[in-house]
Amino acid sequence: MSSVKTADTLASLGENEALRRIFPLLPESRSTILGPGDDAAIIAAPDGRFVVTTDMMIHGPDFRLAWSEAGDLGWKAAASNLSDVAAMGAVPTALVVALAVPAETPVSFLEGIADGLRQACEALAPGCGVVGGDLSVSTTMTIAVTAFGDLEGRDAVTRSGAQVGDVIAVSGVLGEAAAALHLLFAEGIDAAGHPDSQRAAALRDRTGPQLRPSPPIVDGPAAAQAGATSMLDLSDGLAKDAARLAVASEVTFDLFSLALGADPLTAFHGGEDHSLLATFPEGAELPGGFRSIGIVLPAGKHPVLLDGTAVDAGGWDPYRGWSGALG
Amino acid sequence: MSSVKTADTLASLGENEALRRIFPLLPESRSTILGPGDDAAIIAAPDGRFVVTTDMMIHGPDFRLAWSEAGDLGWKAAASNLSDVAAMGAVPTALVVALAVPAETPVSFLEGIADGLRQACEALAPGCGVVGGDLSVSTTMTIAVTAFGDLEGRDAVTRSGAQVGDVIAVSGVLGEAAAALHLLFAEGIDAAGHPDSQRAAALRDRTGPQLRPSPPIVDGPAAAQAGATSMLDLSDGLAKDAARLAVASEVTFDLFSLALGADPLTAFHGGEDHSLLATFPEGAELPGGFRSIGIVLPAGKHPVLLDGTAVDAGGWDPYRGWSGALG
Repeated sequence: MSSVKTADTLASLGENEALRRIFPLLPESRSTILGPGDDAAIIAAPDGRFVVTTDMMIHGPDFRLAWSEAGDLGWKAAASNLSDVAAMGAVPTALVVALAVPAETPVSFLEGIADGLRQACEALAPGCGVVGGDLSVSTTMTIAVTAFGDLEGRDAVTRSGAQVGDVIAVSGVLGEAAAALHLLFAEGIDAAGHPDSQRAAALRDRTGPQLRPSPPIVDGPAAAQAGATSMLDLSDGLAKDAARLAVASEVTFDLFSLALGADPLTAFHGGEDHSLLATFPEGAELPGGFRSIGIVLPAGKHPVLLDGTAVDAGGWDPYRGWSGALG
Repeated sequence: MSSVKTADTLASLGENEALRRIFPLLPESRSTILGPGDDAAIIAAPDGRFVVTTDMMIHGPDFRLAWSEAGDLGWKAAASNLSDVAAMGAVPTALVVALAVPAETPVSFLEGIADGLRQACEALAPGCGVVGGDLSVSTTMTIAVTAFGDLEGRDAVTRSGAQVGDVIAVSGVLGEAAAALHLLFAEGIDAAGHPDSQRAAALRDRTGPQLRPSPPIVDGPAAAQAGATSMLDLSDGLAKDAARLAVASEVTFDLFSLALGADPLTAFHGGEDHSLLATFPEGAELPGGFRSIGIVLPAGKHPVLLDGTAVDAGGWDPYRGWSGALG
C-alpha cells in the first residue's frame, strides 16, 4: 500500500468516521426493508425462503496487495459470492460484508473496496447491494462476504440432479483465472521473486480474469428457468468441481477436450474461474452463455472422464496449496 | 494452543477431512430447507422477510488464546450475533460461520469451536443452528458469523422509537463482562505481563461473563411482544449504547445510578455485556428479565444523563482501544 498518498487511517479517524465515509459508496439493495445502522438489517424474502452463502478472502492465500488494487478486492469478494448464489438458480439480492484490516490502513483503501463492491453489483447483479457489515482491526486483511438470493418461487438447482444422457454445459471462462495467476507469479515479481506492484500493473490487461472475475451471474437463474438438472460455481477447477457434481448425482461426467479451448489442461485444472457448470436435459436449448462441453454417463469407476479416459481430479486445498513464502 | 495434544492439524488433514469432522458437531437449524454441502444453503423466511447481522472476532483485539478455550470462542461468536438478532425483536433461526485459522491449528481446536457454537445455540436460542460456512487459512485466527432471525410477522424494534415518558429497561448483566476483562488483565497474566493460560484457568469461575456471555436472547422477542418502542444489544457499554438509542429517537435517556448495581460506573461504561437495552411505554408490564433503570425525557443538550446529570458517553473503538502489545 506504499502507493497510497492519504494520511487518514482507521487509527487516526476511528471506526465511526471511517464508516461515515464508506457508506455512501456502497451499492443499495432493492430488497432492503431496513438497511445499515441498527443492530441488524431486514431483507425481503418474497417467496418465504432465502439462499445464503459465505466466503472469506484473506491476505496471503487469497490475494497479494502488490497485485490487487482495493477495488479489485471489493469486486472479487462480491463476484465470488454472487456466483455461489447464482449457482443455485437464485437472483442475488443482498450482501453483508465483514472487513478486518490493519489499523494503519488508509481510509481511502476502504473506500476503494467499497467502490469495487458497488461496481461488481452494478455490473453483475443489478439490484443487489450491501445491507450491513462489520469493521474490525486485524494484522491480516480479511474480507468476509455473506450473500443472499431469491429463488423467485422456483426449486433450487442443486448438485445432485444430473441424469444420464444430460448435456454438460458451462457459461463463463475456463482456465483464464489460473492462467492469469501463473502470469503474475512468472512476471509480476521483482528480481528477488517477490510480488511487485509495478510489474503487475504492466500486466493489467491480461490479469483481469484473476483479479476481477466476471462470472455470468444472470445465467444462473436463466439455467434454472431452462430446466438445468444440476449446477455449481467453478471455484476449484473444472476437474475437481465436475467430480463434485458427478459424485453428488451418482453419474459420470465425460468432458470433451476439444470443447475446452486452446489450453484444455489449464481449463481442466485451473481454479477461481467462477463460471457456472450445469447439466441440461438432452435437447434443451442452452440459455445465455452456456455451451456444451460433455455428456453425462452412468456411474463408473471414475467420476470424471476426459474424452472417455479417466483423469486425476486434483484441485486446490487452502491448507496444502499455499506457502506463506509466496508473499 | 500449547496444551492441545493431538497431532492432526488442518495442514496435515486437509480442508475436506477437517470439515468432515466438524460438521457432525454443529447445531442443526429448524429453519433449514437445504443445509451445508451445496454452493449455498436455503433457509425458511416464513413471513417474507429475514433479519441479518454479521460480526467478526479476531485474535488480538477480540480474544487471546491464553484466556479463551476453543469452546469459549465458538460460544461467544454465536452469542454476540444472536444478541443482535434478538435486539430487533426477532427469533434467531440460523447462522453461517466463516473461520480462518493458521494451517498448524489442531483440528481438535476447530471441533472445540463447533462444540461452543452448538452449546450456545442450544442454551440461548434452541432451534437455531449452523447452515453453512467457509474454512480458510490465515495467520490471524478469525471467526466471522452472520446470523439470521424471523420477526414472526411483527414489526422490528428499531433504535428510533423511544418516546418521552417511556421506561428504560435492561435485561441481562451490566458491567460484568468488563469487570471480568479487567480481572484477566490484572491477574490472568504472567510476571512479564503476558496473558497466561494457567492463571486465567484459575479465575475461570469469575470470567464467564467475558469469555462465555449469556445474553437473554428470548427476551428480545418477548420485548417486541410486550410493546417495546426501541431496543439494542449492549455491546459497547451502557453509556455509549444508551446514547445511540437516545440520538436515534431524538430524546434524552435519564438513567438511575441506584438501578445499576453495586458498581454503577463499570455498569455504565463496560462493554461486551450483550444485554438488551429497551424502552417500554409507561405502565407496560416488563417481560422476562427486564428491570427498569431510567426514564425517557425530551431531547436536551446531552443524550444521556445519570441521575439527571450530563455524562461523557465514552466507549470502545476498535481502532483506538487496542494495543497490539497487549498480546
